[in-house]
Amino acid sequence: MSKQHTLLMPLDMHLHLRDGVMLETVAPLTSYTFSGALIMPNLVPPVTSKDAVIAYKERVMAAVGVEAADPELDLVNSDYFEPYMTLFYQNYDKEFLEDVADEITSLKLYPAGITTNSEGGVSSFDLDTMRPTLQAMSDLEIPLCVHGETDGFVMDREAEFMSIYELLASNFPDLKIIMEHITTKVAVDMLDEYPNLYATITLHHLLITLDDVAGGMLKPHLFCKPIAKRPEDREALLKVALDGHPKVMFGSDSAPHPQHKKESCGCAAGVFTAPIALQSLCELFDSHGKLDNLQSFVSDNAQRIYGICPEFKEIVLSDEPFTVPEKYGNVVPMYAGETIGWSIESVE
Amino acid sequence: MSKQHTLLMPLDMHLHLRDGVMLETVAPLTSYTFSGALIMPNLVPPVTSKDAVIAYKERVMAAVGVEAADPELDLVNSDYFEPYMTLFYQNYDKEFLEDVADEITSLKLYPAGITTNSEGGVSSFDLDTMRPTLQAMSDLEIPLCVHGETDGFVMDREAEFMSIYELLASNFPDLKIIMEHITTKVAVDMLDEYPNLYATITLHHLLITLDDVAGGMLKPHLFCKPIAKRPEDREALLKVALDGHPKVMFGSDSAPHPQHKKESCGCAAGVFTAPIALQSLCELFDSHGKLDNLQSFVSDNAQRIYGICPEFKEIVLSDEPFTVPEKYGNVVPMYAGETIGWSIESVE
Repeated sequence: MSKQHTLLMPLDMHLHLRDGVMLETVAPLTSYTFSGALIMPNLVPPVTSKDAVIAYKERVMAAVGVEAADPELDLVNSDYFEPYMTLFYQNYDKEFLEDVADEITSLKLYPAGITTNSEGGVSSFDLDTMRPTLQAMSDLEIPLCVHGETDGFVMDREAEFMSIYELLASNFPDLKIIMEHITTKVAVDMLDEYPNLYATITLHHLLITLDDVAGGMLKPHLFCKPIAKRPEDREALLKVALDGHPKVMFGSDSAPHPQHKKESCGCAAGVFTAPIALQSLCELFDSHGKLDNLQSFVSDNAQRIYGICPEFKEIVLSDEPFTVPEKYGNVVPMYAGETIGWSIESVE
Repeated sequence: MSKQHTLLMPLDMHLHLRDGVMLETVAPLTSYTFSGALIMPNLVPPVTSKDAVIAYKERVMAAVGVEAADPELDLVNSDYFEPYMTLFYQNYDKEFLEDVADEITSLKLYPAGITTNSEGGVSSFDLDTMRPTLQAMSDLEIPLCVHGETDGFVMDREAEFMSIYELLASNFPDLKIIMEHITTKVAVDMLDEYPNLYATITLHHLLITLDDVAGGMLKPHLFCKPIAKRPEDREALLKVALDGHPKVMFGSDSAPHPQHKKESCGCAAGVFTAPIALQSLCELFDSHGKLDNLQSFVSDNAQRIYGICPEFKEIVLSDEPFTVPEKYGNVVPMYAGETIGWSIESVE
C-alpha cells in the first residue's frame, strides 16, 4: 500500500511568473497545488507603481483561470489561489507606500544588474538614501525581500552580501527582512544573529551543488542565480529546512525561460521547478524521515512570518512515481523526463 | 606603425585533435602556426598500442595536409609540423614500453572517467600496481603527463590531487611528471616543491575564472575540465606564465566539440582555442609588458623539458586586429565573432 502525506495550504514564497504567454503557461502549474505564492516584480519594466501591481495581479488571476498550456496535464485550476504581490524596491516616499500597502505583501530589493531584469535595482547601499523608504516600510510593517548578492566572484557573492544584511537588520530592527533563496552556510548561520532576519530556500538548492551544474557535463537547466554552492553549504540548508526551522520558508524561485534561452551560447539563469516542487519536497523530506516537518517549511512558517491566512486547500501526495514531462509549453522543468518518487494524488 | 613580434617554433604541449572529419577540420588550424604539438590519446578506443600510435600519427599527418575546412581561411598548411604522440597510460610492461618508446613523446595518465573519453584510465593510484610501469618509464626517460583531478567537488578536484603528484614525484624522482592544464595556485606552488614536476597552462585558464563561465550568463563554450577557478588562482597562473617560469609550458588543451554538443542540455567539456592561441597570447603578454617572455612559454621551455628539437618555423604577429570566425567547420572557437588585438602576419 502506498504511503500518503497531506499538506495544507502550501505556499511558494518566491515565484517568477513572468508575463504574457509565459505567464499563461506557468501560472496554472503553481495554482494547481499551491494556495498562494509571492510573485516577483522583475518584469520589463519592473512593477513600481500601484497601478502596475493591480494590473499584474489581474493578469496573474486571469492566467490562473486559463487552461494549462498542455491540456493532457489535466490540471484542476483551483479557485483558491492567492498571488501575494510584491513591489520592485526603489526609494519610495511614505505616502506612496501607505497608498500601495494594501495591494502588496512585500517589497523586493535587487542589487542593480544582479540577475534577470534587475537593471533598475539598488546600485549603492547607502543608508542615508534608503532610510526614508526602509523606515516607512518598518512603520507600515511591510517586509523587505532581498536578493542578497554582491557583484564579486560568483562563489563569494552571497557571503560578501552578509555585511549588508547586518547593516539593514541592525538599523531597522522592526523591519522584517527576508534573505531570499539563500545558498550558503554563512547565510544559514546569520538567521540566529538577528531576530528580524528570515530566509527562503529553493527546492533546487536543497538538491544540488555546483557539481551538478558543472561537475560532469554542463547542465544549463540547473544554472541559476545564486549559483548552487558547495556540499557543506547544501548540508546547512538541508538541515534547517528538514528541521522546519521557524525562520525558514519554502520559496521555489521557479524561473521559467524558453528552452532556446537555456540551451544556447549564453544561457539565462533560472531553474523551473513549480510543477515538481511538492512532489520533490515530499520525496526529499521522506528520505530523511522528516515528512512531519514539511508542513512548517511549505506553509506554516510563511503564514506566521508574513501574517497571511490563505484559504483552505488540501493536497494529498503519495509515494507513487511521477515521470516529469519533457516540457511544459516551451519550458524545460528540472528533472525533465526523469521519475520522482512522489506524486500528487488529490487537490481539494 | 604596427608593433610586431616574432615567435620561433611555437609548440602546443597539450592538444586534442580527435579523429575523422573533426581531425581534418582542426589539425590544419594548429599546423598553420605551430611547429609541433603533443597529441592527446583519448580517442575511442584510447591509443594503447604501438600500431595505434603509428596509425594515429599517420592520420594526423594526412589531416595536416588536407585543405582547411573553410577554404576562405586561406591557411598555409605547413610542411613543418610534428605531432608528438602520446600513449594512453595503462599498466604496461617494460618490453612494450621499450618497443614503443621511439614512437611516443610521453604517456598521458587519466584518472578513470574524469573527462572526455577517459573511462579506461587509472581507477586507483596504488603504487605497487603502478610501479613497474612508472619505473620503466623513468628508466627509459619517457615523461608522464597527468590529468590531475580527483572525483571530489568540482572546485577542489585539482587541489585534492596534489597528494598524488607528491606520491608520484617523490617515489620516482627521475621521472619527469607534467601536471597538465593546471588551474590553481596550489598547483603553481607545487612546482617549487619537486624538481621533477612541471606544468602546462592553457590559454583560457590565463584569461578566465569561473565568473566568466557562470557568473553572468552560463557560457558553454568556456566550460572545460578542469573548470576555471578563482581570481587568485588565475593570478598565480598568470604570474608564472608571464615570467616564463622554466618549468611551465604552453599547452592549449584546445578541445573541439561539434556546436550541438556544446549548446544543449548536457554540454561537453572543452574550449576550442587552437586557431586563436598565438594571437591571444601575444595580446595577453603584450598587455602586461611581458612579450619577451612569450618565447620561453610557447617553445623554449618545452624544448628543454622534453628534449625535443622542432624544425625551424618563424611566426610573425602584429598588433593588427583579428576578428575571430564564428565557426571553424562546426566548431565554435573561443572569442567567436569577437576581435583580438593581435593577428598572424606571416608564417615561414
